Amino acid sequence: MALVNENFLKLENNYLFADIAKKVNVFKVTHPNVDVISLGIGDVTRPLCPAVIEAMHRATDEMASESGFRGYGPEQGYDFLREAILKNDFLTRGIHLDMDEIFINDGAKSDTGNIQELLRWDNSIGVTDPIYPVYIDSNVMAGRTGTQQDGRWSGVVYMPCTAENGFVPTPPERHVDVIYLCYPNNPTGAVISKQELRKWVNYALKHDTLIFYDAAYHAFIQDDDIPHSIYEIRGARKCAIEFHSFSKTAGFTGVRCGYTIIPKELTATTLDGERVPLNPLWNRRQCTKFNGTSYISQRAAEAIYTPEGKKQTKETIDYYMRNAQQMLTTLRGLGFDVHGGENAPYIWMKTPDNYGSWQFFEQLLYGAHVVCTPGVGFGPSGEGYVRFTAFGSHESTLEALHRIEKWTKSH
Amino acid sequence: MALVNENFLKLENNYLFADIAKKVNVFKVTHPNVDVISLGIGDVTRPLCPAVIEAMHRATDEMASESGFRGYGPEQGYDFLREAILKNDFLTRGIHLDMDEIFINDGAKSDTGNIQELLRWDNSIGVTDPIYPVYIDSNVMAGRTGTQQDGRWSGVVYMPCTAENGFVPTPPERHVDVIYLCYPNNPTGAVISKQELRKWVNYALKHDTLIFYDAAYHAFIQDDDIPHSIYEIRGARKCAIEFHSFSKTAGFTGVRCGYTIIPKELTATTLDGERVPLNPLWNRRQCTKFNGTSYISQRAAEAIYTPEGKKQTKETIDYYMRNAQQMLTTLRGLGFDVHGGENAPYIWMKTPDNYGSWQFFEQLLYGAHVVCTPGVGFGPSGEGYVRFTAFGSHESTLEALHRIEKWTKSH
Repeated sequence: MALVNENFLKLENNYLFADIAKKVNVFKVTHPNVDVISLGIGDVTRPLCPAVIEAMHRATDEMASESGFRGYGPEQGYDFLREAILKNDFLTRGIHLDMDEIFINDGAKSDTGNIQELLRWDNSIGVTDPIYPVYIDSNVMAGRTGTQQDGRWSGVVYMPCTAENGFVPTPPERHVDVIYLCYPNNPTGAVISKQELRKWVNYALKHDTLIFYDAAYHAFIQDDDIPHSIYEIRGARKCAIEFHSFSKTAGFTGVRCGYTIIPKELTATTLDGERVPLNPLWNRRQCTKFNGTSYISQRAAEAIYTPEGKKQTKETIDYYMRNAQQMLTTLRGLGFDVHGGENAPYIWMKTPDNYGSWQFFEQLLYGAHVVCTPGVGFGPSGEGYVRFTAFGSHESTLEALHRIEKWTKSH
Repeated sequence: MALVNENFLKLENNYLFADIAKKVNVFKVTHPNVDVISLGIGDVTRPLCPAVIEAMHRATDEMASESGFRGYGPEQGYDFLREAILKNDFLTRGIHLDMDEIFINDGAKSDTGNIQELLRWDNSIGVTDPIYPVYIDSNVMAGRTGTQQDGRWSGVVYMPCTAENGFVPTPPERHVDVIYLCYPNNPTGAVISKQELRKWVNYALKHDTLIFYDAAYHAFIQDDDIPHSIYEIRGARKCAIEFHSFSKTAGFTGVRCGYTIIPKELTATTLDGERVPLNPLWNRRQCTKFNGTSYISQRAAEAIYTPEGKKQTKETIDYYMRNAQQMLTTLRGLGFDVHGGENAPYIWMKTPDNYGSWQFFEQLLYGAHVVCTPGVGFGPSGEGYVRFTAFGSHESTLEALHRIEKWTKSH
């Protein structure tokens, strides 16, 4: 008799964005002539840049000839891409990595979800709150939590991100085995300074804590002194795994490519106290349960690091950041309390009049025909907030802002 | 203190094919002027067919325009591909599937490795032996086995595939919770008849066993009466999950696309005896830990099902099957005891003179400069066998056979 993993049954059936899609669908069916603008889900809209498109055509042509054809690639990714990453994303910031500390993946979601397989089921988990739901859900599936009540999982340490702490909490008093951090942050758009990040690294070194650092939005950082990588902090190689994605950097949400860094000196512990390096364990995991990222996607990612690729990628990021700037200006002008959006593509807005997140979501949908993401969907401290993304076109962003303005003033 | 998942430490450091690569490298370094031909690893060599190449170029061009750009796709895969699969791989064989019983993946390796996450850690596991190492290794990582001794894992039920049973074992006497089957088989090249497969389905229905059926090689079936899918057997929808891959069907080892079928009536059981359908659980797993397969790869896979795609794909499969036929003829002519190769791209050969698998591997490498895969690498019943693949070019296959002939005769 095959027994089911009952941890799955603790999860609600629906993923946040599926819930939103359902509610938007109901609206569309009952209002067939109304055009809805989504500033909700964090998907990009600009086309891939020319350098990437050219690289994909070239790679496709290679696959058409006997001499150019590539079958199974290395599970860890091709050296051409690992080298480009190492040189451009790390060496330029004074971080020295070996090639085999870089693992190419099919996007950060897979790896941030799967990485916890390397750890025992009974490690304690800490998350900043609100947070990307994958971090918690993947641990629920593995049995590392209790059950959920009022949006909180027992067995998970929540570290609230609030207006008071600038949405960057300080490390907890108590000991936690594994902590997820994401900066620039999804959903709040907050960034962390080197000084604040150093506190986390020092905490981790002191408590023997493992940090999972999600840097998927680092390309949106505008200020020079904000760290792009946790390895800019001394000691982080001993305590942190870092996740990167090309999804937002270069519009790869449909192309699927990213990478994970596991420094060789990073270890976890056996029950007997033996230190075990996680780099070879992840390598074993990937060789067993992953067969490498599409060759075309890897060539596409490589092209981001060419001079043209860098220039074109920056143009797209600037495009989105102009949206963010416009959103901040307009929403502030309307008297809303908004955060983020300066080094991140997300705007985190306090709902007016103490509306609940879902309540405001519905008001905005039915009143202004604009979709946002209810903050509480990201965790209990997100209640009373909504998230807007800057990933729309200029035109639709402006139109959405115009609708919000009209709706607010008539309200 | 982050505690490591100690189950990983039970695994040997190296994956079979990494071991082979290392040994071949040692040979190459010590024999720099000798050209080695590999009939070892199961990777394809023919370029992608024109219909697929055209589809990839078209999809790339779509991604270059604002109107054609596609961001996040459905985690379950695009409907255009699910529909093509449903119509061509199943309806034509009288199998009716709903679209949401099909999950597009990035190749069968990921899903055959990850599927066991849906099950409790203490289910018993049964495998035909020899077997694709991923099935066992992924269960070792999850703690479903004891330790390994003499190539056998305690806690795993091995069902030997031998010359006596035609490499198709009958179901065991005892009860097993989860059983992995792969037909056409990797590594033996054996196929299963409907009559034999019915025994397994009946066993599963009687014992409430879950079958993981790997059909990655179904496109190589030449005989009309060999089943392409376990769902050709009545009752299988209640007890079997099926894995498919385009890796071997259409040379997608570097493109990364396949699919998994989870019928809606398929259930596993809670400790309290409640029946839980696995289809929505896998959907939840994929939505949380996977972000869909590359759009380009899915358009490439769709093209396999066009009239041109079907014709061109069949030509490539015929090409490899001519290799297999040539290998069978030559090796038999030399007096070797060979199996498989008629409905599968693998030839399973008894080593002469009771050589061990690794011993013969080295003899062949150093004597004939040809690489095979040691059968024992696939499990204890593989000892005394080696696997050859038909995935080389005609020219290199003929040259390898010529070398083996010369070496055998001089021996």
